[in-house]
Amino acid sequence: MMLNLKTESPERWLAQVDNHLDEILIDHAHCENKAARAALNLLMSYVENEELTIKMTEIVNEELEHFHQVLGMLKKRGIPFRRLTQSNYGRQMKELIRPQEPDRAVDRLLVAALIEARSCERFDLLRHHIDDVELSDFYDELFESEARHYSVYVQLAEDFAPRRKVELRLQELARAEADIINHGDTLPRMHS
Amino acid sequence: MMLNLKTESPERWLAQVDNHLDEILIDHAHCENKAARAALNLLMSYVENEELTIKMTEIVNEELEHFHQVLGMLKKRGIPFRRLTQSNYGRQMKELIRPQEPDRAVDRLLVAALIEARSCERFDLLRHHIDDVELSDFYDELFESEARHYSVYVQLAEDFAPRRKVELRLQELARAEADIINHGDTLPRMHS
Repeated sequence: MMLNLKTESPERWLAQVDNHLDEILIDHAHCENKAARAALNLLMSYVENEELTIKMTEIVNEELEHFHQVLGMLKKRGIPFRRLTQSNYGRQMKELIRPQEPDRAVDRLLVAALIEARSCERFDLLRHHIDDVELSDFYDELFESEARHYSVYVQLAEDFAPRRKVELRLQELARAEADIINHGDTLPRMHS
Repeated sequence: MMLNLKTESPERWLAQVDNHLDEILIDHAHCENKAARAALNLLMSYVENEELTIKMTEIVNEELEHFHQVLGMLKKRGIPFRRLTQSNYGRQMKELIRPQEPDRAVDRLLVAALIEARSCERFDLLRHHIDDVELSDFYDELFESEARHYSVYVQLAEDFAPRRKVELRLQELARAEADIINHGDTLPRMHS
């Protein structure tokens, strides 16, 4: 199991992909956007941490680039971009964040790491599963950058707590993330 | 009077600059960050507008680049970056936004335009006022990009309302902005 995830995506999810690839793609564009916003929010919350501000700026730029790449994929396939009802995943992940600093910083970073890890796992599934070669290559590229982002977030968490504590908390949060994924969502989404 | 602003910055503001240049610089870094976030929020609210998503991405990237440039200026001058109580300007400007779409979109874009216009006017004052040559050159560069952003925002507003309506609303909002500036703020800030 990769990147500390505690459960693999269930078969159910690939069935959702097969039946609703258009909607998954649209949701993917929204996810890139939300990832950019989350990184920018982290930057604004912890401006005193110079390394964090640099890394978050890189991530904002990359996620927005991905967003436009996904928009390009949609356009080429004649899929109009539109708003979507969000899956429960993001909201449930956010509920795991402890309110008091510096725990809050650790959790925000680790939750971001786990969301990247889950995206990463799903891009890996997608790149092997779908027949669209261009999309498959695209997921291959994204796979690498999400894995890198995962490491960046985990490493930054160690600025706010000792490595051992970060590791334990990551395991806890990963178990909670696995529960959320196993519970699933009826909406066909990147993280359903 | 440039870029539709209805009042020039009062002398009071340059006195605040002279007495608190460090704080103004720190606030400037925060402003670049907030400008990035505002652009990203606009992108997320109006994702269906492709031109808007492209322009907002450019602005997010530029504002974050400026943010890091200001951090560099702070560092070179030995000024530690830190949080600051915000001036009332941004909050008061946001209160001008009408709640119903598409008025809301028009107002969000025009408020962003006017904030850029005010920054632009102040960078112009600063570049002529301060003795620090490096900072002065920096404000000179920023002046141009803020003026460009102003035009981008006004032009995008015309996607949401006819040009004539946008023009009238811009004049109204500019008068409200002038009142806010004339009222001022005791905190020494970029927009006090």
